Amino acid sequence: MKACYWIWYQGDFELYHAMKQNFSRIERGYGWPAFWKSEGFRNRVVFRKEYCIETETTFCVYSKAIGYVLVGEQKYPFGKMITCEPGSVKISVHTGRIECFPSIYIKGDVIYSDGTWQAEDYANPPVAAGYSRYFTDEGQDPASWDYSEKIYLPVHVEACGNGTLYEFETELTAVLELDDKNGYRPLRVYCGESREEALNREHCYYSWEPDARTGRCPRCAVRFAYIPDCRKGEVELKAIHQYVDIPVRASFSSSDELLNRIWSVAEHTFQLCSGIFFIDGIKRDKWIWGGDAYQSLFVNQYLMADADINRRTLRALRGNDPITTHINTILDYTLYWILSIKAHYEAYGDLEFVKQVYPKMCSLMEFCEGQLDEHGFIIGREGDWIFIDWADLDKEGALCAEQMLFAECYRTMSLLSRLLENDAKECQTFQTSCSKAASGAAYYFQQGIKYQAEYEMMKKNINAFFWDNDQGAYMDSFVSGKKHITRHANIFAILFNIADNQQKKQIVENVLSSDTVPEITTPYFKFYEMDALCKVGRLQDVLEQIREYWGGMIKKGAVTFWEEYDPNVPEEEQYDMYGDRFGKSLCHAWSASPIYLLARYFVGLEITDSVNGKYELHPRLEYFDSLDCVLPVGKKNVHIQWDGRELKVDEQMRPEGR
Amino acid sequence: MKACYWIWYQGDFELYHAMKQNFSRIERGYGWPAFWKSEGFRNRVVFRKEYCIETETTFCVYSKAIGYVLVGEQKYPFGKMITCEPGSVKISVHTGRIECFPSIYIKGDVIYSDGTWQAEDYANPPVAAGYSRYFTDEGQDPASWDYSEKIYLPVHVEACGNGTLYEFETELTAVLELDDKNGYRPLRVYCGESREEALNREHCYYSWEPDARTGRCPRCAVRFAYIPDCRKGEVELKAIHQYVDIPVRASFSSSDELLNRIWSVAEHTFQLCSGIFFIDGIKRDKWIWGGDAYQSLFVNQYLMADADINRRTLRALRGNDPITTHINTILDYTLYWILSIKAHYEAYGDLEFVKQVYPKMCSLMEFCEGQLDEHGFIIGREGDWIFIDWADLDKEGALCAEQMLFAECYRTMSLLSRLLENDAKECQTFQTSCSKAASGAAYYFQQGIKYQAEYEMMKKNINAFFWDNDQGAYMDSFVSGKKHITRHANIFAILFNIADNQQKKQIVENVLSSDTVPEITTPYFKFYEMDALCKVGRLQDVLEQIREYWGGMIKKGAVTFWEEYDPNVPEEEQYDMYGDRFGKSLCHAWSASPIYLLARYFVGLEITDSVNGKYELHPRLEYFDSLDCVLPVGKKNVHIQWDGRELKVDEQMRPEGR
Repeated sequence: MKACYWIWYQGDFELYHAMKQNFSRIERGYGWPAFWKSEGFRNRVVFRKEYCIETETTFCVYSKAIGYVLVGEQKYPFGKMITCEPGSVKISVHTGRIECFPSIYIKGDVIYSDGTWQAEDYANPPVAAGYSRYFTDEGQDPASWDYSEKIYLPVHVEACGNGTLYEFETELTAVLELDDKNGYRPLRVYCGESREEALNREHCYYSWEPDARTGRCPRCAVRFAYIPDCRKGEVELKAIHQYVDIPVRASFSSSDELLNRIWSVAEHTFQLCSGIFFIDGIKRDKWIWGGDAYQSLFVNQYLMADADINRRTLRALRGNDPITTHINTILDYTLYWILSIKAHYEAYGDLEFVKQVYPKMCSLMEFCEGQLDEHGFIIGREGDWIFIDWADLDKEGALCAEQMLFAECYRTMSLLSRLLENDAKECQTFQTSCSKAASGAAYYFQQGIKYQAEYEMMKKNINAFFWDNDQGAYMDSFVSGKKHITRHANIFAILFNIADNQQKKQIVENVLSSDTVPEITTPYFKFYEMDALCKVGRLQDVLEQIREYWGGMIKKGAVTFWEEYDPNVPEEEQYDMYGDRFGKSLCHAWSASPIYLLARYFVGLEITDSVNGKYELHPRLEYFDSLDCVLPVGKKNVHIQWDGRELKVDEQMRPEGR
Repeated sequence: MKACYWIWYQGDFELYHAMKQNFSRIERGYGWPAFWKSEGFRNRVVFRKEYCIETETTFCVYSKAIGYVLVGEQKYPFGKMITCEPGSVKISVHTGRIECFPSIYIKGDVIYSDGTWQAEDYANPPVAAGYSRYFTDEGQDPASWDYSEKIYLPVHVEACGNGTLYEFETELTAVLELDDKNGYRPLRVYCGESREEALNREHCYYSWEPDARTGRCPRCAVRFAYIPDCRKGEVELKAIHQYVDIPVRASFSSSDELLNRIWSVAEHTFQLCSGIFFIDGIKRDKWIWGGDAYQSLFVNQYLMADADINRRTLRALRGNDPITTHINTILDYTLYWILSIKAHYEAYGDLEFVKQVYPKMCSLMEFCEGQLDEHGFIIGREGDWIFIDWADLDKEGALCAEQMLFAECYRTMSLLSRLLENDAKECQTFQTSCSKAASGAAYYFQQGIKYQAEYEMMKKNINAFFWDNDQGAYMDSFVSGKKHITRHANIFAILFNIADNQQKKQIVENVLSSDTVPEITTPYFKFYEMDALCKVGRLQDVLEQIREYWGGMIKKGAVTFWEEYDPNVPEEEQYDMYGDRFGKSLCHAWSASPIYLLARYFVGLEITDSVNGKYELHPRLEYFDSLDCVLPVGKKNVHIQWDGRELKVDEQMRPEGR
């Protein structure tokens, strides 16, 4: 059966919805649009395809744009059946739309819209049209996302002061609907991720006066809701949870109940933060951040294995050329975007996507190369945010951690260039018009050579300038003379193989096992630290940290994992962040990393050939009495069972269409 | 009294409304958005200003955008009164809007919005905020233009077949409103610029089913309207003419009644085509074209002298950087845009605007310099439209007329660079922090030198390659070897002083007075031809042509001047163009040039110093028995009276605020 899709200029869908996403943050009554360049969608697009029609056929073009259909030399309006005679025919659909991106849907037996159409914006060469499996019906409008819905009723209702407090079984992204038994009266609902926040009318983030007609509030993060001046029983409240239906393919069940609980909370956290895009948190910021998204790729790979959300997020983050500022204004987040493409490829073997974004990878690298110092190290320009982590790094001159990311970008570029070279060579073999493919192969070959050389030079320079022999570790900065050591660069040195084995040993000893080098305090960088510890075989340490750190949040009552967690902070301050009483996000994607760590290192599944769905399995059964897990690999789900004596591994093909 | 304005990111207002304008063309039931790149407005803007507050003051920010106000470190929502304590304070207003450009209005005694605010888009250095005299009230939304309205009732109603034909006194851009005496029934109205078009239901451009509730049709060009199946008297029709109120400052009254009539029809034509922007025609294309706009500048200068519509049109045409395709896809239209800035400056002395667009002039020149041949001549790239005129030009290799335009662009750049250099020097004298002004002056000086050198080289090369001594004229192409002569390049050679006096004489004799060189057939190029003839003193010829050519259209019943006019075309084909039965636009801005020609050369007023409002007057009284004209010069209106014996010249200051 042919699949017919709404189509648009590649990337426009993502840029438009990303803008909506990044403008959706609300804080105590005012909107807070993200503070970086908003990348615009196109307003004027033409879609083209050539057909060889064998017998007379009809089709109809649907669109909310202004425009017309051109069949040969004849113009037709939208919404009318068009008959096409046999023969060769060029069809183009001209569209203009101001308030959002133009899109079209062509219904017909022979002539219909899908990714084989080309799109042009009158400024660049044609590109393949964009489409989504969520938009396949003529009655839809790709500018408006239809969420899946699930109704939740409160699990606990109690009188509090002169109002009523409602608690739901977990945190949700929901539209609250009020049903006032006494008929309509003006009420206000105060929402909270915590009980404390809902009851704090001054400091809680979201509060709404429900629509008088529907009784509904805008969609927001909510676990607790408080309605003042309302006696218990007067108002019935329900939460209409709105989500993007991305099925979870993995499951984790072990003899360790705490680990099972941690997996489950991480899974819920991650699902809430995986909507149209990977966002950081559901209460705050609700923004698409490049660094956060990079980590989400790894969790996604082992939990939902949904390549679509990767593509949407990465297109949204990258925006248009020419690039003038870093992704989210953060230098490291630009670099993670490059690394994300490799992570995406390694998970799904999606070379088509790599091919589509490769030009934007090159232009992004070129943009970065515009800010190198005399040693070829990347440094910040005015307005650039050198982030790495909420930690006390010595940021004078070139920062070591940034160089390691940048070196890994060069390696990534070299690697992907070589993949595209091979792909172009294969096209050359199979195509008659092979000159374009041949020149493509030669181009990618040259690129591969160039980036590989840069990578090697960079790696050499990092070791020459940043490695401190006396301390047996990498310093943040060689410019300042302070020889300040933090965990961050040293973790990257292990992850990206900047350090040789001897250096890695020293890092583990002098940095990762040291009591004097400050601890990592964000689950964000915990992800990299745990990953590095696993890579050097310190699994016991990692397991203990997962149980202590993530288990610690659960002990404090977490139903989703937090943006930040410091076990030493007193309970009354545990929701504070950024100097704000309820500033901390209690449902934050970057805290879902136990899924990746458990799946990758403890169940021990590593994809080795994403194109052919090959993987290696090295389960660390010594940590479990029993284990019953499912993990996705390409189109397969791998079922791993361990009952303490026997290990059983099954593969199932997942049903089509999901 | 302080003036408070809605403000936006400079240029966004124009880009948004230009998109609306260029997407407004409708042809027989389908929309036809302009076939060039639509330049997007920004969606995320921050507005900033610093104040020194002496006594406590309050203000309020109005906006339809998402966002907040930041006063020092404190955030406030829109629409709430904000109190500001004495002292130095930084105010920023953060906005995001997806469906159109963000704009804000700040109301307060001390803190209020105007052009002194800065705007940032997170990608470029701050710019002065944009504003318009049409948007000064908090209740407005700059995304929606409120047209002025005037009701017209039909001057003639007649039964035609089984329907009714309505005629209005002249052509309008109107919303038709139907009042059916028998109550509502589904009717369709067929509109026409001509009686023939309205009665031709198949080929007429605009036909509407009026809204059932209001009885109104969409705004469109209309002089005749036909309603089938409707007996005379059953339906009352009125036209609500919607226009932008730009007062006409000039008047022309002479002893020559035909000239008076030509002026009057040209004035009406031009007013109809001068809305938010200069458009080509009101039925078709309704688009903003760079070549058409350039000519409109000259008519505007002598008729309405409205600098605002120039600025709006020129900003809309230029769009954003980086430029990837020519303005309207036409190489010559890109070049006219550069020349337009000079024409605007010469009319209004508006150096502030020149300063604002100068960087975009430079980047546009650089874009053009990317397509030079080995002699430095500009040639088309794939997809470029080398237009010049609807005429049979020899377009092989570099085209002479384009080189003349390009040479004039270099001269323009040199001239304006020198003006900005002098301006920067003056700032230097008056400012204490003069280092920026000094470096500005040095920069403009270098630019002036560079462009002047390019101009001289270009002029030399044009004469070396394109001047044909044998024919005593410029050839279209030197590459083809055909030595083909048309009027176009030779006209430009006079207008832009590429030819010396000796060459000019030869051109007049061998080209302009020749019967063998094909005649100009478009009023578009007639403009340049008449201008050139005037410049070489052939006023008698020009006057005859005005009377014959434009007078000819009036004889054919024109109430507005046409896109094209060929006296030899039989009457039944006079509305044809582009192979389309009613394809010809009957109200086309480029046909309004008699206003410029009569004012500039016959009344003889030339502005010599636009900054100080100085002019020279050389009235050619020999052509008139009497004359009573008003022409605008800066803030003055100059009143010229000639009764056959005495010449009287008065100056009046025009009232403020218009």
